[in-house]
Amino acid sequence: MSQFTQDFQSQLADLMRWRRDVRRFRTDEVDEAVLTRCLDAFHMAPSVGLSEPWRVIRVQSAAARSAALANFEAANADALAGYDGERAQIYGTLKLSGMRDAPVQLAIYCDEDTGKGAGLGTATMPEMRRYSVVGAITHFWLAARAEGLGVGWVSIMDPAQLDRDLDVPKGWVLVAYLCAGWPETDSLTPELETAGWETRTPTRAPLRR
Amino acid sequence: MSQFTQDFQSQLADLMRWRRDVRRFRTDEVDEAVLTRCLDAFHMAPSVGLSEPWRVIRVQSAAARSAALANFEAANADALAGYDGERAQIYGTLKLSGMRDAPVQLAIYCDEDTGKGAGLGTATMPEMRRYSVVGAITHFWLAARAEGLGVGWVSIMDPAQLDRDLDVPKGWVLVAYLCAGWPETDSLTPELETAGWETRTPTRAPLRR
Repeated sequence: MSQFTQDFQSQLADLMRWRRDVRRFRTDEVDEAVLTRCLDAFHMAPSVGLSEPWRVIRVQSAAARSAALANFEAANADALAGYDGERAQIYGTLKLSGMRDAPVQLAIYCDEDTGKGAGLGTATMPEMRRYSVVGAITHFWLAARAEGLGVGWVSIMDPAQLDRDLDVPKGWVLVAYLCAGWPETDSLTPELETAGWETRTPTRAPLRR
Repeated sequence: MSQFTQDFQSQLADLMRWRRDVRRFRTDEVDEAVLTRCLDAFHMAPSVGLSEPWRVIRVQSAAARSAALANFEAANADALAGYDGERAQIYGTLKLSGMRDAPVQLAIYCDEDTGKGAGLGTATMPEMRRYSVVGAITHFWLAARAEGLGVGWVSIMDPAQLDRDLDVPKGWVLVAYLCAGWPETDSLTPELETAGWETRTPTRAPLRR
C-alpha cells in the first residue's frame, strides 16, 4: 500500500530515535535470513541515474578481519595523537569500533566506473554516486535497527590500505566499513554524548531563507 | 519503545519500495506543520563525531528560485549535449526536476568548517561530514514519503554558481537541491525505468567475500 498511517509515522520516528551507532556487540551470530532482509534495503535505495553503484564485501576471513582491525588501530592511534589535554583524555576512553566482537562486518564500496545509468546526474556532481551508496547504507541501518540489530560505521581507517588488503577492483572507492550484530544494550543517547565528547543540538536549527 | 514488530518491519520495506525520486508535483502548498515534522528527521540522523554538519536553506524568493532553475536548465542542456543517438533522444524526453512546480525547495549544504565533533572520525575520511548530510537527507526523504509527500533530488547543477546565487558562507559545500511537495501520482517504478533509460537490478547482487 502507498499510504502510511499516523501510527506508522510515529513508529518511524521512534526507529530513527533508537537508531544508534553501535560499538558494543554481543558475539552471537546473526541469522543469515535476517541479514539478507536487511541487505535487501540496499536494493530499494535511490541511486543517481539508477546507477546502483553500491558494492558490498563481506569481511569474514580471519586474515581480512585482522588487516581491517590493524588498519583501524593505526588510524585511531594517529587520531589520538592529534588531540591534547582533556580532548585527548576523553578520546582515549572512547570505544570507536566494535571490530573485535561484531559477527558481521561489511566493507561498502562505490563503483566509480560503473556504466549503469550512463552518467545521468553526475556530470557536475560526480560525488552523487558515492552519495547514492550512503543513502543505501542509511536504508540498511534503519532496516537493521527495525530487526533489533545494531550497526556501527567505522571511518577511522586508511581507505587505500583497506583497498589493498581486500584486493578491490580498480575504480572502487571505500564509503563505509560497517560492523553489525546484536547490540549489548539499546539506548536513546549517542555514546559520544554519554562520554562527554559532544552533545546533540537540542532542537532543529532554524532554516536560512 | 525500542522493539519493532514484524508488521512495522514490513511497512518499513513498503515505505522504501514506494519512495520515489519525484519530479511531478501538484502545486498546492505543503502545510508547515507537516514540513516541520519531516525536517525533524534531519535532527535524528547519525553524524560523524556528532558534528551535525547539515545546513538547510529554504529557497523561497522568486529571485533565488529563478536563479536555481536557470542553473539547472544550463547544466541540463550541457548534459544533453554529451549524449548522442538513442541516448540523446531519451534524455530529451526526461523530466529531471520538478523545480517549476514544487512548492518546497531546499538547498542542503554541509558545513565543512564546523568545530562541532572536534574532527572525530574525519581525519582519514573527511568526506564523512558530507556523508552525514546524505544520511540526514535520506531520513528526511523517508519521513516525507511516510507523510505522503514526494521528494526529488536535483544534482544537475553547477554547485559553485548556486553558492554564489544563495550567498552561502565560506566552507559550506552543496550536497543536494531538493524539491518537495504532493506528488501527482504514486508509483513503485522509477521514472527512469518507465522512460527506458535504465533498469533496476532485479535482485540483490551477490556479496563478495
